[in-house]
Amino acid sequence: MKTAVYRKARFNAAHRLYNPSWSDEKNDEVFGNCNNPNYHGHNYDLVVKVTGEVDPETGYVIDMKVLKALIAEQITDRFDHKNLNLDVEEFQSLNPTAENIARICWEKLNNHLDPSLELQIRLYETERNFVEYPA
Amino acid sequence: MKTAVYRKARFNAAHRLYNPSWSDEKNDEVFGNCNNPNYHGHNYDLVVKVTGEVDPETGYVIDMKVLKALIAEQITDRFDHKNLNLDVEEFQSLNPTAENIARICWEKLNNHLDPSLELQIRLYETERNFVEYPA
Amino acid sequence: MKTAVYRKARFNAAHRLYNPSWSDEKNDEVFGNCNNPNYHGHNYDLVVKVTGEVDPETGYVIDMKVLKALIAEQITDRFDHKNLNLDVEEFQSLNPTAENIARICWEKLNNHLDPSLELQIRLYETERNFVEYPA
Amino acid sequence: MKTAVYRKARFNAAHRLYNPSWSDEKNDEVFGNCNNPNYHGHNYDLVVKVTGEVDPETGYVIDMKVLKALIAEQITDRFDHKNLNLDVEEFQSLNPTAENIARICWEKLNNHLDPSLELQIRLYETERNFVEYPA
Amino acid sequence: MKTAVYRKARFNAAHRLYNPSWSDEKNDEVFGNCNNPNYHGHNYDLVVKVTGEVDPETGYVIDMKVLKALIAEQITDRFDHKNLNLDVEEFQSLNPTAENIARICWEKLNNHLDPSLELQIRLYETERNFVEYPA
Amino acid sequence: MKTAVYRKARFNAAHRLYNPSWSDEKNDEVFGNCNNPNYHGHNYDLVVKVTGEVDPETGYVIDMKVLKALIAEQITDRFDHKNLNLDVEEFQSLNPTAENIARICWEKLNNHLDPSLELQIRLYETERNFVEYPA
Repeated sequence: MKTAVYRKARFNAAHRLYNPSWSDEKNDEVFGNCNNPNYHGHNYDLVVKVTGEVDPETGYVIDMKVLKALIAEQITDRFDHKNLNLDVEEFQSLNPTAENIARICWEKLNNHLDPSLELQIRLYETERNFVEYPA
Repeated sequence: MKTAVYRKARFNAAHRLYNPSWSDEKNDEVFGNCNNPNYHGHNYDLVVKVTGEVDPETGYVIDMKVLKALIAEQITDRFDHKNLNLDVEEFQSLNPTAENIARICWEKLNNHLDPSLELQIRLYETERNFVEYPA
Repeated sequence: MKTAVYRKARFNAAHRLYNPSWSDEKNDEVFGNCNNPNYHGHNYDLVVKVTGEVDPETGYVIDMKVLKALIAEQITDRFDHKNLNLDVEEFQSLNPTAENIARICWEKLNNHLDPSLELQIRLYETERNFVEYPA
Repeated sequence: MKTAVYRKARFNAAHRLYNPSWSDEKNDEVFGNCNNPNYHGHNYDLVVKVTGEVDPETGYVIDMKVLKALIAEQITDRFDHKNLNLDVEEFQSLNPTAENIARICWEKLNNHLDPSLELQIRLYETERNFVEYPA
Repeated sequence: MKTAVYRKARFNAAHRLYNPSWSDEKNDEVFGNCNNPNYHGHNYDLVVKVTGEVDPETGYVIDMKVLKALIAEQITDRFDHKNLNLDVEEFQSLNPTAENIARICWEKLNNHLDPSLELQIRLYETERNFVEYPA
Repeated sequence: MKTAVYRKARFNAAHRLYNPSWSDEKNDEVFGNCNNPNYHGHNYDLVVKVTGEVDPETGYVIDMKVLKALIAEQITDRFDHKNLNLDVEEFQSLNPTAENIARICWEKLNNHLDPSLELQIRLYETERNFVEYPA
């Protein structure tokens, strides 16, 4: 049977929900105050789950120091204290909903993980609203 | 791959664990102080998980404002500041264990969700005791 | 300079807010759904703060095992899984608001503490509503 | 002896730390990545403490429904899903550090509280950084 | 559909990560400061998940009092306030990583559960690092 | 009126409670399983409170980056992943109770703070047991 390890990280960012192909009225109707053109922000909590076999020599699925450094390099150093819409390339043309941010986090980390490992992302936008990818 | 979204809600309620087909002695033996005939109570934390495809237009699995309103209408407006055994129809003849409350929450919400969406309920009776339906 | 030590405990109880000298209308107006005659309930978190000098022999202000046993004997064994209005003597004629529960907890513990120690109670009715006595 | 009651609220906002009388270099040196001109953001947790005598008729220091409505009207309805620097009048010429936001919250609420009540604000910018006013 | 119930427990223990078949240099390189020969320690949070059918008579998957006693007898009474490497038989020759501790917890509990029940362990070493077995 | 700022940090350490001037019997009687000669351990949460005037130029009581670095240099770099009794000079002849650890943290930080600032330490040994110095 496999084992999963989890590592929690954080980033604080501004964002705005907005679909450029819609009218302002439709954006307001769908996204409400999340569509404030001056942006609002969140403390995002990111939980990275990596599933695999435990190495009998180390007792590790993956070295947490390696995973921590990968999360910093690929995600938190690039998202923390940023405006997701303006400062982060991936969201120039992708609406930064929690669902979309989680998928981008998954893609950025999965490229750098050994293919024998399975990856899942949980992203908390607030304590009350959070998402998981893949489900 | 699908995405899951979670919404957390709360209700504060009184309850008593009791099987009317049993003797008082057997109820005391099985349910202990949870069978206090004068009731006790909890701050219940409810976590609703909805799994589906992300709509490419909105970036949402489901609009959280819609999900929040549905949870209020179907569950928290009806359970909050209530005695589950006396005030809530579903528990007139069903023992309000965390397991049974979670299943009732699932049934009440699932009736109102699009069939393409999958639903799971997590209910915290205390920080130390919680349940999930379906597992 | 003195040191404070804190011990956290819990009890789950039913209650109802109600002033018997008022009409039902006034009780409803003031206490709203907290006045449900069938009761509702909470997971109460109790934080007991004891301030004093550190004993140079033990390095303790008070032995936490002693404080834990005192809280159980005086409070949690008597309040947990109870209906505060019906089962707890102190609230037979005292409205069990968080403010009043905290004062009763203080009185019950303070009688059994060495007079050189100072006592303060914090009581969480929910994560969002809590009280402290004395302020 | 007096009793304190606490009410917790939340708002999610964007902000930027910046002193307009300084050069860009000095702003960067002092405020680092908190000075991102495109803003970043936080989930702010606000804890409002009100100290006073318990009313013997209600068992309340202050009706929590009244306090909750006052916090919404004066603070969260005006700060939530906003850019503090651009959308909130008080921070047009005041740097929105946690210290300054806490003081503004205090001023806005204190104007509407009975003078017999004492007010203190705790504001969490993150789980690791928070402030209290007055100390 | 089945239901899962969760019970949370805790133990505070010292440990050291170390592979006796490696040189000191390799142990330092792989385990860093987790390999301090004088040990360090953690507050471990253990979450035990048991999945099964709800008994229609009790409304329980498993009686939480039974599960709580089993966790105490098999795990927390034997691990709490111990040095895992020196005091706990299972880790005399097994490196007490979170992955390995979780598997041992699973084995110790699973032997005593009805075969119709499915068991999963989540173990928090810190708030930021945790594991799950089986994944 | 002054403002307080708080910064939270963490360290994971092993320790043992023991008074060398007492017999083993007396140590066992007073300290119970906290006196395990093989040590046990904790995830300590440290909250540092600094009270002072807000600088009108920065909007800060103290720059959190400065406070964070000072806590790392004076405390967490020296206590984290250590055995407090064996590896930390201050506890070679001082019993590492939470009360004594908090006082040592206060002394180590206070030496490096501007005398206009007031310092208080809160130390969590577990979620249920914590201390504050000075009270």
